[in-house]
Amino acid sequence: MNFLEERIVKDGIVKENNVLKVDSFLNHQMDVALLDEIGREFHRRFADKNITKVLTIEASGIAIAYAVAREFGVPMVFAKKAKSINIDGDMYTAEVESFTHKNKNQVIVSKKFLSENDRLLIVDDFLANGCALQGLISISESAGATVEGIGIVIEKGFQFGGRSIRNLGYHLESLAIVDGMDPVTKQIKFRKQE
Amino acid sequence: MNFLEERIVKDGIVKENNVLKVDSFLNHQMDVALLDEIGREFHRRFADKNITKVLTIEASGIAIAYAVAREFGVPMVFAKKAKSINIDGDMYTAEVESFTHKNKNQVIVSKKFLSENDRLLIVDDFLANGCALQGLISISESAGATVEGIGIVIEKGFQFGGRSIRNLGYHLESLAIVDGMDPVTKQIKFRKQE
Repeated sequence: MNFLEERIVKDGIVKENNVLKVDSFLNHQMDVALLDEIGREFHRRFADKNITKVLTIEASGIAIAYAVAREFGVPMVFAKKAKSINIDGDMYTAEVESFTHKNKNQVIVSKKFLSENDRLLIVDDFLANGCALQGLISISESAGATVEGIGIVIEKGFQFGGRSIRNLGYHLESLAIVDGMDPVTKQIKFRKQE
Repeated sequence: MNFLEERIVKDGIVKENNVLKVDSFLNHQMDVALLDEIGREFHRRFADKNITKVLTIEASGIAIAYAVAREFGVPMVFAKKAKSINIDGDMYTAEVESFTHKNKNQVIVSKKFLSENDRLLIVDDFLANGCALQGLISISESAGATVEGIGIVIEKGFQFGGRSIRNLGYHLESLAIVDGMDPVTKQIKFRKQE
């Protein structure tokens, strides 16, 4: 097990309906030393890619993107949900369905911050059915930017998001892939990775 | 001018209706070196407070809180807007009106992550009328935690949030206080601080 899988076993909580709660260290309360380590690990995995910008989506993704962008020494950009009066009209948009919240959001990135010269690393905390990630990819493509890689902290391997993104040819790295969880025994089955 | 005021003058954009856009470095695209510096500066200002946790509200606040929590070596917690099916029933709540989005949100923090033993530093990117901050203070009080300090990146000094929070006796530090902006000349007037 790597550092993240160990932490999930230690502090993650398996609930009914394939819910894995990691809110004590990753997406409500956040362990900054763990975030730093996540940043270093993604940097190690994508170090040869000449990344120019890290892209994510609010909210939990922001901390991941910051950790990663710091290691690369590049800016991060987070896609916003819904329209803010403080955002100019000139923006890339995609529609994203939320698995967690059971609703649809328009996500937006200002055109000022993505260009055809950008070599992007897209990061997020969770990957389940992949809707958020597909929205970010769609926005990157609209900008003419290159998606050099995708870094996910926890992938739910029993949902179809990861497979469909990999089938599209993207270089997707997940620090932990959960292939199954037993709500009775609380056992978590991680996919073996190289 | 301090490092943040200099950056605001360089890259901030003054718009009509007292809107100051800092989305190229603070709340859409984020400059991670600047965030690191913000973290160090708030640590310097509150170093004697024995902070146990940094509290903020999603979304832009997350990056600020991470930068600050990292310097203190403590966890950060971010209040979430609206109810998620992934959050347990046991939580502190407050109602917060958004100046930017012209709507009301329920903000929530799980009771697991705040206690009467906590000495909190509350941080956020903007302070205008103070609604978000009042919600975070209300949640902290509900938890019986002590608000040791409040760190704001940019305060709009011509709105009433900062004054009312200071009148309540809280130790509020803003890295930049904007007392006025001219949408024609683009001049920004900062309050002189010690």
